[in-house]
Amino acid sequence: MTPLVGRMTVAGVGLVGGSLAIAARRAGLVGEVVGFGRSAANLALARERGIVDRVARDAADAVCGADMIVLAVPVGACAALAERFRPHAPPAAILTDVGSVKGGLVQALEARWGAAHVVGAHPIAGSEASGAGAADGELFRDRPCVLTPTAATAAQALAVVRALWAGVGARVVEMPAAVHDGIFARVSHTPHLLAYALVGAVAEVTVGEHPALAWAASGFRDATRIAASRSELWRDIFLANAPAVRAALAEFRGALDRLETLVARGDAAALGEALERARRARRALDGDR
Amino acid sequence: MTPLVGRMTVAGVGLVGGSLAIAARRAGLVGEVVGFGRSAANLALARERGIVDRVARDAADAVCGADMIVLAVPVGACAALAERFRPHAPPAAILTDVGSVKGGLVQALEARWGAAHVVGAHPIAGSEASGAGAADGELFRDRPCVLTPTAATAAQALAVVRALWAGVGARVVEMPAAVHDGIFARVSHTPHLLAYALVGAVAEVTVGEHPALAWAASGFRDATRIAASRSELWRDIFLANAPAVRAALAEFRGALDRLETLVARGDAAALGEALERARRARRALDGDR
Repeated sequence: MTPLVGRMTVAGVGLVGGSLAIAARRAGLVGEVVGFGRSAANLALARERGIVDRVARDAADAVCGADMIVLAVPVGACAALAERFRPHAPPAAILTDVGSVKGGLVQALEARWGAAHVVGAHPIAGSEASGAGAADGELFRDRPCVLTPTAATAAQALAVVRALWAGVGARVVEMPAAVHDGIFARVSHTPHLLAYALVGAVAEVTVGEHPALAWAASGFRDATRIAASRSELWRDIFLANAPAVRAALAEFRGALDRLETLVARGDAAALGEALERARRARRALDGDR
Repeated sequence: MTPLVGRMTVAGVGLVGGSLAIAARRAGLVGEVVGFGRSAANLALARERGIVDRVARDAADAVCGADMIVLAVPVGACAALAERFRPHAPPAAILTDVGSVKGGLVQALEARWGAAHVVGAHPIAGSEASGAGAADGELFRDRPCVLTPTAATAAQALAVVRALWAGVGARVVEMPAAVHDGIFARVSHTPHLLAYALVGAVAEVTVGEHPALAWAASGFRDATRIAASRSELWRDIFLANAPAVRAALAEFRGALDRLETLVARGDAAALGEALERARRARRALDGDR
């Protein structure tokens, strides 16, 4: 049987790109996987782990004859890479990505590639781990994958990208890029920014002779685990989704100000109610009240 | 052999109080454990699980003949409980607690009990779980337990409380209450307040037709797990340690403002450096850079 995608180029064979390659190969969705990236050591590891069939260090070699190119590099590096690849890829090659920001990025890719063949994608999976060594063929199983087609997207390109993600076990959901960016500013981008800020602030504090951070226990570690994520990725995400992140930050500051006011006033009743509402909302996330 | 403590009353047989009772009995450190609390159902469960030898619903019955009384109730309920217990307990009974705030609380206990026999304690262990059902005799193993004796503390009382915590596997550390409160405002109290604020803010947001919280993935869940903690406990902690919490909040806001300014300016280089510094500090917590 002909695979869904004959030749797939994965630019950035890290946690997400590498996991997609493994899963797609396992599911028989791709004929050949070509790995492309900056780090020779990481590509060698990808080759060694059998994540890719071959690696390419040269852009022309990477996308020659590709049916699909997956940009799995930091958001800020995608547009330039699309531009580098364009002259060497078949005209009808599908360009997709896995970026955590969609609006401006998809626009930039459409402008550089030919809008019909661009399909923005964001699998909601990952962790603070990175590199080909962390790639895992089950990463997307039962996880959502958001696609953000535009009016310009070709139905056929969308169908192929949809089939790829469904084929690796993801639950595919379509929504406008602006809706995606608004949602993830709230549940992902801003929480990451807060975690970086919290670690940054506490790292500078010494009380008595104790560096405060030396007393961090499991609560602090859980709360800030996402601040162990690759800073380069998150720098790009914050910058690419700055307006929505700042809107989400304003909402957060409002909620924090309200709590602090109650603490300052010593208003135990209202503080208790506000905390209890938040606790219930958090418990509900675990299907538990 | 005579146990370290003949009769120990645990007021609040929940996660921490119940775990201490189990561990102390297992280690042969106590003769009899009496459980006291508001919830008959929880006390019945404590009795059924063998966490306590007997339960008391009446204050006089609870502390009659007690050698040590452990207050393991929310911080805000401790002083009143000490007052209720005082007339019924032996004059030399040791009063200790497990509260996350020490300064004002220890002062209040000393004023009500007789300062020599009060020893403030804070085992750094726990989770968002609660109740006798969550009690676990290994909870304190290799975890720090901070003691905050004052100039008024009797050496003998301190030695007994120290031996109790060491005997259940904790690493006992002494420090002034104010130092304790400053440290834990940074690494515990303020992170909890931020998590409650974040969940509260995101719970109110709908983007397109999507309630934002429906898209929360593992990063958000980890970052806000502590907001699933009992709101009553944390209300009391924020109120009891308000000055240090507000100082820590001011530091956090400063760090957040600096990051937001870099995002607003689009200063990729400085933003990347600030995030990377925080990432390294967070990785170092896991013994990893």
